[in-house]
Formats: sequence, C-alpha cells, structure tokens
Amino acid sequence: MKNPIIGIDLSGGDHDPEGRLQAVKKFSKEQKNIDIRLYIDDQYLSNKQHLFAGLAKQITIISTDQAIFMDDSPLKALKKRKSCMSLAIKDVAEGRADVVLTAGNTAAMVAFAKHWLKPLCDIDRPALATLLPGTGKRTLLLDVGATLDYRADDLFNLARMGSAATQSLGLGVGQPEVALLNIGVENTKGNDAVQQANRLLESSELNYLGYIEGSSLFDGYADVVCCDGFVGNIALKACEGIAKLIKISSGKSRMGKLLGKFNAFNFNPSQYNGAMLLGLDGLIIKSHGNCDEFAFKQAIHQAVSSARTDIILNMKNTLGG
Amino acid sequence: MKNPIIGIDLSGGDHDPEGRLQAVKKFSKEQKNIDIRLYIDDQYLSNKQHLFAGLAKQITIISTDQAIFMDDSPLKALKKRKSCMSLAIKDVAEGRADVVLTAGNTAAMVAFAKHWLKPLCDIDRPALATLLPGTGKRTLLLDVGATLDYRADDLFNLARMGSAATQSLGLGVGQPEVALLNIGVENTKGNDAVQQANRLLESSELNYLGYIEGSSLFDGYADVVCCDGFVGNIALKACEGIAKLIKISSGKSRMGKLLGKFNAFNFNPSQYNGAMLLGLDGLIIKSHGNCDEFAFKQAIHQAVSSARTDIILNMKNTLGG
Repeated sequence: MKNPIIGIDLSGGDHDPEGRLQAVKKFSKEQKNIDIRLYIDDQYLSNKQHLFAGLAKQITIISTDQAIFMDDSPLKALKKRKSCMSLAIKDVAEGRADVVLTAGNTAAMVAFAKHWLKPLCDIDRPALATLLPGTGKRTLLLDVGATLDYRADDLFNLARMGSAATQSLGLGVGQPEVALLNIGVENTKGNDAVQQANRLLESSELNYLGYIEGSSLFDGYADVVCCDGFVGNIALKACEGIAKLIKISSGKSRMGKLLGKFNAFNFNPSQYNGAMLLGLDGLIIKSHGNCDEFAFKQAIHQAVSSARTDIILNMKNTLGG
Repeated sequence: MKNPIIGIDLSGGDHDPEGRLQAVKKFSKEQKNIDIRLYIDDQYLSNKQHLFAGLAKQITIISTDQAIFMDDSPLKALKKRKSCMSLAIKDVAEGRADVVLTAGNTAAMVAFAKHWLKPLCDIDRPALATLLPGTGKRTLLLDVGATLDYRADDLFNLARMGSAATQSLGLGVGQPEVALLNIGVENTKGNDAVQQANRLLESSELNYLGYIEGSSLFDGYADVVCCDGFVGNIALKACEGIAKLIKISSGKSRMGKLLGKFNAFNFNPSQYNGAMLLGLDGLIIKSHGNCDEFAFKQAIHQAVSSARTDIILNMKNTLGG
C-alpha cells in the first residue's frame, strides 16, 4: 500500500488535543500525498475554531458530540457508538481508512476494535505490540496492555501472532526467534500460565528460544518477546520511569548538563511512540495517552509506515496458511 | 542491634563464587567487628584452597557436599537439608546468625525460608522488597520475585507488610503512603486481583493513595508500592536492561565517552543490590544471582544495615498491634 488513508482520533488522551493537532498539521505539510480523516469532539472544534483555520486540503474533519473519557469502562464506552473512537475504527472496518491512530482510553479502544473489526484468522484476544529500542536487532514486545490475564493457550497464540507480525514487518531473517518473558531462564521458573505456554511452544513449529528475563529485553536476543498485557505495560512504563530518572540525575552533574546540550542522550521513549493493535482484520495504532506533539507525530509516522507494510494482509496469509 | 552476625551463602548464583568471596574478604577487612558465617560447597573449598588462605579471624567457614542448582525446583531443593542455603537459613532460625545473604536460587530460598522460619504474625506469603533508586523520597517496591500469582487478599497483606517495613526502616513521615502498581490510575483499569485489592485498601486504615503506573515508580510518589512478584521482578529487570542500553548508547557518542570518564552516570543497578525477604520471623537478604564483586559487597552492606534497624522485631510490633 503506497499512500494509506489515515484516520486520526484527536479526542481522549491525558492532555488537551492541541499538541496532537499541531503534530497533524506539521505532518500534513510534510507529506501532502497522505489523506487524513480527523475525528474531533464538537465542543473542542467550536471553542478552538482558530486552530483549525487554513487546514491542509487533504485533511477531512469528522466531528461528534459523544466523548469517551479516560476513566470510562469498556462497557460504558461501547454505548457511545458516535464517539470519535468508534467512528474512526468503524471507518477502518468499512474501508474508508487504512489505519487509525488514537491516544484515547486503551480498554475502550480494544472494546471498539473487537466490536467493529473481525478477528484475524483464529486469534480471539488482540494484543498491543511495540518495537523496543536497541543498538542491534530490534525486538517486538507484545502484549503491552490490550489484554490482561493471559492463559497458556493465549500466550501460545500471542507467540504465533508476534512471529507472523515480525515476518510481515521484514524483521528477522527467515523464521523469527520467539521468547517468553519470565522471572528466570530455568525451566522451573515462572507462574503456571508461563510454564504451560513454554511446553506448548517447545512442541510447536515456531522458532522458539525459551524464556527471556527483563534484563535482556533490549539486547536483541529474540525477534519477538511475549507476555501478559499487564506485565508488558508495567515493564515498559517502568523503563520510561528509569530513563527519566537517569536523565534527571545526569542533568544535575556538570558533565550531564554539557551532555544534554550535545544531545548525546539518544534514548527518548517518545521516539518509540505508537504500538500496533494486532489480532484483528484492521490496523489500529495506539499512542501513549500522555504524549506531546513530538511523540504524537512519531506515532503518525508509525501508523503510516505500518500500513505501508500491508501487515494485516501479510499476517492473514501467514496465520491462515 | 549494633553488630549483627551475618551468614553469607557463597554457593549458587549465576557465576563462580570467587567474586563474591573477594567481596567478603574486602568487607571483613573494613568492618572487623562484624562476625561472618561463610557457607561454601566442599568441592569449591578443596579446589580453591589458596583463595581461603589467611581469611580474617572473624570469618567462620561452614562447608557441605549438598549443592543447590539454579534450576532445582523448590521441591527438589527442599530435600537438600544440608545444603549451604538450608544451613544458613536454619542458623538464622536458631539464633546463630542475625541475617543471611544469598545469591542462590530464589524459589529455593523462599522454600527454605518458609520451612525453617515461622511466619511473621498473620502473613502467609513472603515477599521480596527492594528500595528503588530516586532523586528524592525513596520508594520500597514489593514483591520483586518471592511469590507469584497474588490474589486480592495477598496484595492487601503485602501493603500492610510494606507499610510496616517502611516505618521500621525510618522512611516516610508518620503513616507511610502506599500505592498499588497498575496499568493506569483510573478505577476501571487493571486485572481482577488489583481491582479487588484496591477496594480492600480503600476501606483500610492504611494511608492508601490508589494506583500508580510504572512510569512514576522512581518519582518518590509513594513510600511503598505493591505488586505481584512476577510483575515486580520483570519490571525491575527491564529497568536494568534499559539502563544498560542507555549506557551503551551514550558511550558510543564522543560526549558520552567523556561523560563516562567523569563518572557522571550515577545510576548503576549494582549499587542497589540486596532485596529483603519479608513476612517471616527472620531476616534474609537476596542478592542478584548475576552479581559481580561490587554488587555482592553492596548486598553485604545492605544485609548489615537492615539487621541494624531491627526490622523484623519492629514489623512484629507494628503488624501484631
């Protein structure tokens, strides 16, 4: 797919949409051949009309008066069928957009995705997948927060899905190497779900390496690492926390200040914003709710480049075959 | 307790015990008034006699021919009652040592701790607790790997225990502030165990703040943060992984190299080595299995300073009252 149509849900998120809107404006100036469908709450649109003046012609605005809040339960959110998030995901389901990006309520996003989109082959629990930073081979970590309380067979399907996604993204040579995230690498380690999934994976046709510990996540040890969405989300956010602490600590020293000026600190979690929701017949990209303009722009790029790989079509071929 | 007797289990761990032995030797030169009971495998002792020549007189060697391996299941390990780990923990139970330090198999350590030591008051599941690095207030994170699959009432007891431990350590003013680690701060977020524990904690007498996300772990937001041992272990190790990546990435730039020379990079996970096993009537400190000499020496200091706070006695008073 050369130039995907991208749906961008500006509602929700932890902050006012202005930073995200600026990101859309900058992106549309740089990439004039990408059509954008922009979903926005009526009230914001009428209150901030000046921000929408002179919008590029490839941006179509869709506005609505139903808002989803960050603390809405999935059940409550699902009743708001005319919310930005619902309309945006429905547009992917019905072919009016090729990919949708949102910084809104994750649980609501998963609920609408399951409502409007068909499952991908035999996958019944979708997962959020993100490419981890690294100096060598990049690792795809999933699930980072779509589905909680994985059973062994869910973890097994997660590994199949991660392997298919990595192949589609052109990462890894041949059969992607898959590992399970655990508290130790020995066979006796871990909770019941992980130990049972380990046995299922050992007798599967996947290129399964066994367990991996949190400390090896950024070593490029495996192409794909699988874990429960609760664990993956907390681990990833803890990494953001420690990166922030290291930046603050280093910034306090004289050399750290100098380093900051030279911008040698080349790890910035915002740079990696944009996780793919996999396991459904349509592509959704989730931005960090707490994103700023830079981070949201990175997520827009992520949405476009993921759509360009035709990842859903390729995964369907791999998983269905 | 002024000068605790410390038991040090040199067996197990991910590497040969030599680095750990060097740490013991250096420590005993610096702190001549601390008696050490050193547990070591017979075979290592006879093969490496030269390393044990001229050992300080305050070090007593206890050797045995039963070895626990890193991949022994707890059940298999428990049969080795004459192993270093078993003897060391038994010595704490019977008053021959005030604290024991080990870098061995965590699950075996927990099994022996439950076997030889009485539970602390009504706590039935022990937890590993570690002080997180931070620039301001330090946070106690528990559980980082002793017990997996926490139910809601276990998480509630974990919060009680963490609050009591923090008071004993003299951290936090008055009633320690307690938070639950979750994937979001809204009430609707999280798995069932976390949501139920949240309700129990809201109606408790603890100074409960609610949920905290991984990204805020190092902000000094709470005095105590509670989570399942599976989640805590993976989050903590992922932080080690990203810290290593940042160090490597920065080291590659010219300014990063300069920074390295000035040692401004003041976050080193080894510095924080030594987690306390809490919930039993005896003090055990767990070193990272993958520790080097520096990290093990930090854990020895951690063991001595924890014993000096009389943490077990103080926790008994708080929890029992």
